[in-house]
Amino acid sequence: MKIVAAQLNPVAGDIKGNLNKIKGAYKKHSSDAELIVFPELFITGYPPKDLLKRPYFLRCVDEGIEELKEITQDCRCGLILGAPVSVEGEKKKLLNSAVFIYNGRKIASQPKSFLSENDFFDERRYFIPGKNVRVFEHMGKKIGLTVSGDLWMGADRKNCPAGKLVSAGAEIVINISASPFCIGEEEKRLRFLKNHALKNRVPFLFVNQVGGNDELVFDGKSLYIDENGRISKAFRGFNEQVELVDTESEAAQEREITEDSISSVYNALVLGVRDYACKCGFSKAVLGISGGVDSSVVSAIAVAALGRENVKGVFMPSRYTSCDSRELAEKLAANIGINLITISIDALYEKFSEELSGFIKPESGVNTAFENIQARIRGNILMALSNENGWLVLCAGNKSELAVGYTTLYGDLSGGLGVLSDASKTMVYRLAEYINSGSVTIPREIISRAPSAELRPWQKDTDTLPSYDILDGILQKYVELSMSPEEIIESGYKEKIVYEVTRAVVKNEYKRRQVPPGLKITEKAFGDGRRMPIAGRYL
Amino acid sequence: MKIVAAQLNPVAGDIKGNLNKIKGAYKKHSSDAELIVFPELFITGYPPKDLLKRPYFLRCVDEGIEELKEITQDCRCGLILGAPVSVEGEKKKLLNSAVFIYNGRKIASQPKSFLSENDFFDERRYFIPGKNVRVFEHMGKKIGLTVSGDLWMGADRKNCPAGKLVSAGAEIVINISASPFCIGEEEKRLRFLKNHALKNRVPFLFVNQVGGNDELVFDGKSLYIDENGRISKAFRGFNEQVELVDTESEAAQEREITEDSISSVYNALVLGVRDYACKCGFSKAVLGISGGVDSSVVSAIAVAALGRENVKGVFMPSRYTSCDSRELAEKLAANIGINLITISIDALYEKFSEELSGFIKPESGVNTAFENIQARIRGNILMALSNENGWLVLCAGNKSELAVGYTTLYGDLSGGLGVLSDASKTMVYRLAEYINSGSVTIPREIISRAPSAELRPWQKDTDTLPSYDILDGILQKYVELSMSPEEIIESGYKEKIVYEVTRAVVKNEYKRRQVPPGLKITEKAFGDGRRMPIAGRYL
Repeated sequence: MKIVAAQLNPVAGDIKGNLNKIKGAYKKHSSDAELIVFPELFITGYPPKDLLKRPYFLRCVDEGIEELKEITQDCRCGLILGAPVSVEGEKKKLLNSAVFIYNGRKIASQPKSFLSENDFFDERRYFIPGKNVRVFEHMGKKIGLTVSGDLWMGADRKNCPAGKLVSAGAEIVINISASPFCIGEEEKRLRFLKNHALKNRVPFLFVNQVGGNDELVFDGKSLYIDENGRISKAFRGFNEQVELVDTESEAAQEREITEDSISSVYNALVLGVRDYACKCGFSKAVLGISGGVDSSVVSAIAVAALGRENVKGVFMPSRYTSCDSRELAEKLAANIGINLITISIDALYEKFSEELSGFIKPESGVNTAFENIQARIRGNILMALSNENGWLVLCAGNKSELAVGYTTLYGDLSGGLGVLSDASKTMVYRLAEYINSGSVTIPREIISRAPSAELRPWQKDTDTLPSYDILDGILQKYVELSMSPEEIIESGYKEKIVYEVTRAVVKNEYKRRQVPPGLKITEKAFGDGRRMPIAGRYL
Repeated sequence: MKIVAAQLNPVAGDIKGNLNKIKGAYKKHSSDAELIVFPELFITGYPPKDLLKRPYFLRCVDEGIEELKEITQDCRCGLILGAPVSVEGEKKKLLNSAVFIYNGRKIASQPKSFLSENDFFDERRYFIPGKNVRVFEHMGKKIGLTVSGDLWMGADRKNCPAGKLVSAGAEIVINISASPFCIGEEEKRLRFLKNHALKNRVPFLFVNQVGGNDELVFDGKSLYIDENGRISKAFRGFNEQVELVDTESEAAQEREITEDSISSVYNALVLGVRDYACKCGFSKAVLGISGGVDSSVVSAIAVAALGRENVKGVFMPSRYTSCDSRELAEKLAANIGINLITISIDALYEKFSEELSGFIKPESGVNTAFENIQARIRGNILMALSNENGWLVLCAGNKSELAVGYTTLYGDLSGGLGVLSDASKTMVYRLAEYINSGSVTIPREIISRAPSAELRPWQKDTDTLPSYDILDGILQKYVELSMSPEEIIESGYKEKIVYEVTRAVVKNEYKRRQVPPGLKITEKAFGDGRRMPIAGRYL
């Protein structure tokens, strides 16, 4: 059977735009194919969130399905897409379904059985689970449909939807997904897909959404796996791709397709920035360039996402900024080819100190209030440039800083998107090396110098924080692996440091509540997928 | 039977502190009572959120239950409390249970059947639903337990847990709850409780949590309803109360206990501010006082919550601040008895204008960039005072402004808590009248003058926005009732205004993502209970 998998990039909520994508692909490919398949909830874009609670939004979905019936009229090519479908007679109960449309009629609708309810997923908020699976026939071939999370019900489990479909006669199983990128996800998917195919001796087609939607970046990487569990076709990552899979003739290649994780992270961040900007209506972005590694990495990513002519760097020195920083900021800007504006914050800092002199103790070694004033002046300047020019402000705060609160709310945490919110400092260095792997873009000194916020004389991050390898090690265990401080100490970290770090994570929940949405790249990012009390007492 | 209902205020995550509250109440009341009842998930505080995903947190809960077994040893008073309970043999599956402990043993555990999955509730994320109900006997009386949401399964429904318990012989049904305040909730609860009692001809004891936890304020208002559906005992709202209910002798009063909604809203906000401050470790708060109604209402609420000596007002005039505003700010501060600091932002504004003169078009009528700079200078000053003195910054932005984005991110939206985030401007005026209902606290002119941001000459809110009665009418229909723009127009609003307002709501999703947590008082607040895409396109 000739199946076109449409790995496309929808916009959340944009039913009209998403329908146009479907219609465009259908028009282009329906003469060559017998079936064209779009990802999970493609008509609404994933995740549509509480738009699913709005009755008129659901009416628009239903109208959209009607339009799709029309375009398939008198055509031998079937169309499968993900859509929310109301339970017959119970408008308020929704199923997350794969809908099969053929020749002007809705032929079948297969709801998702295993709703996801972890991390950022809230599917039970919107959907009830499907109870049954049903095979349908098209062009003499028996097809089984599954929706994303159904895949995670392993092939060995009795209630595995794929297994049930094969028992019911399916000769091919299709999974439509909106499965976002995070490190390790690709391997996991591949393992499950291969298992399903092998165990059931059927080919498996996995059609995944691509594109950035707020915190989530969908990587695409759709796959066709043959009945021997071999990769027959691997779609590109982080790009749209609409391509034919011929289930009769597709030759199996048994090659390693898993992308190197740092390259995937980089590609995810580039796509995340590009799509956030574009889907929010921005073509240009601005960020503070400090001469440090975080802003260097973000500016390189922004250039890759938006083009060098669309990225504006702002260097904002104060009395505490070293000469090295200025030189390195300029060198970086020259290397990546972006315009660098310099606006000193020193006179403003002076003025703030003057105006607040009666209210803040005279500067003795620069306290937190004075440090934050500097960071906030910088935030204000970036926001003013954004207001004036319609530029998206990119925030360069990394996950390690966000975790322990080594960062200023309304200061360096200003912006529309947190590009590195889920990248630890260690990961930022890996990204810098990756960016430089072709030719040197980020000056070597930026990577090798000791990190400093430069908010008081001779400041180094290590004055306040443990070294980043230790900090990131502890944070990974605490945040991503949910280990207790005691377990982390047992694993080989010093008691004092572990308690300081974990207490700082708890204490800074309030800051993370107010930061820009950040691109998720690990299994556990701060943001929608991690919900903690602020006014709490724990540890 | 003598039952003590312990309407207490837990801290989220603070197992040790919550256990101490349980032990204290048990020690004090166990000699007079046969049963003492604590609210839903009281041991963890509600909502514990993703702490429930941390294995060591759950181990601490289990250890806590063991401690409670010990204190009940050799005592005739049983203890019922809400706790997460692992499914036998499946550590990772949790039930939201009412646990009955008596004489050193866990006698029974009744899981919640109907998990809440709407608004801010994410119970499926943590729990699986209970399947069965079981009556247990204590001191010769058959008792049925239900947990919060079980109540909402109406008495007429076949699968109503209360009905099933009565069929199984229950002579009294107890509901332990963590049911937060919102307008209309009290009436709804009362209606359901009365129905349950009447329909089943059993008395019903409803024991609710009290206290503020981040966005949510639990109002308490526990109730004992007799078998004729009459209110036999009504606990106080917004206060702790631990009191005996004697099911044999409690005389039915059939009186109207429903509090006036504006008084409830006021009490909810006062408790919300007090608990957020106290549970986050603040004793003092600071806010900008502009001479407008929002900051006046917030300062009055803050004084009620924290005491006048703990509230600092800051008046921050610019060239656009009217003389009236200064006078009214001073009069307000004098009336409510708080210290008012004045810090002019004019020199700072001048300096910003100078420093940015090459980058922002010269001020022609003051554009958005210049308006926002003023608001952000004010935000920076408040945050500096907070950093210096450890004061909690209270944000006075109201729901109408937040809805349409008539407010500055990192400016007037700075702070730890959004006191009026869920109060429309119309509601703010009602609150002002309520606050003044005893004696005049908020100067009348503040209530009667036309609202203005005073960020440019002669500015009035109505230059940009429709009048607040129209704006709030549209917002209520769009945000709270999920009506479509077309339906709102049909209901009698002008097309142009409806589209402008609803588009502004959609466009400003990004701002609301970064605002301080705000106290929920309506059925649909911005915040955790309303989840919308930012990079989306809809309407």
